[in-house]
Amino acid sequence: MLNNVSDLDSVFHALADPGRRLMLERLGQGPASVSELGKSLPMSLAAVVQHVQVLEASGLVRTQKLGRTRMCSLNLVPLWSAERWISERRAFVERILDRLGQYLAETTDTPTNAGDTL
Amino acid sequence: MLNNVSDLDSVFHALADPGRRLMLERLGQGPASVSELGKSLPMSLAAVVQHVQVLEASGLVRTQKLGRTRMCSLNLVPLWSAERWISERRAFVERILDRLGQYLAETTDTPTNAGDTL
Repeated sequence: MLNNVSDLDSVFHALADPGRRLMLERLGQGPASVSELGKSLPMSLAAVVQHVQVLEASGLVRTQKLGRTRMCSLNLVPLWSAERWISERRAFVERILDRLGQYLAETTDTPTNAGDTL
Repeated sequence: MLNNVSDLDSVFHALADPGRRLMLERLGQGPASVSELGKSLPMSLAAVVQHVQVLEASGLVRTQKLGRTRMCSLNLVPLWSAERWISERRAFVERILDRLGQYLAETTDTPTNAGDTL
């Protein structure tokens, strides 16, 4: 798991670009070369390389040179960390909202005395 | 839910800064004014305002002017969307890895004939 603040910074930064998210979706189906990653994207090979470097810096993608080809593969660990960060915050807020809802339901259910000012 | 690619871009971009993530954690406990949000952060009020604008643009934070105070509150919907995007991709890859593991286990269990080339 990633524990450092800066690790999460780089993961969310990597996820903030639609082209990089498409690359991750492609890598979800299995490893691919850098040029394969760029095939369905409207960008130059140089731009693809730059995006791959951002993904590699975030830890979401691992690359390996095989002859003259750089192969890329997906690393799930940073995805788990990003997902966990979001889900923990969401769950925390939802618990507060649940308690608030419960409190409101209880106080609404309490019968008011006739003549009470509403 | 957010469906547009650009919405997810801005949500992940907003989450990519540690100061903005701290602001979201603070807002998870309830609404706060812009100056309250900046209290525990080592930055100027002008910087806090800029971060709040990024959070507001992503939809993660809603703001409302009450007199001379701008109050901020957390909006969970973009968090759900970001979480869903990550969890769907992770689950997809994990299913592939599970099937691969199952395939490997099955092929490993198959007895090889004596004399087979390994």
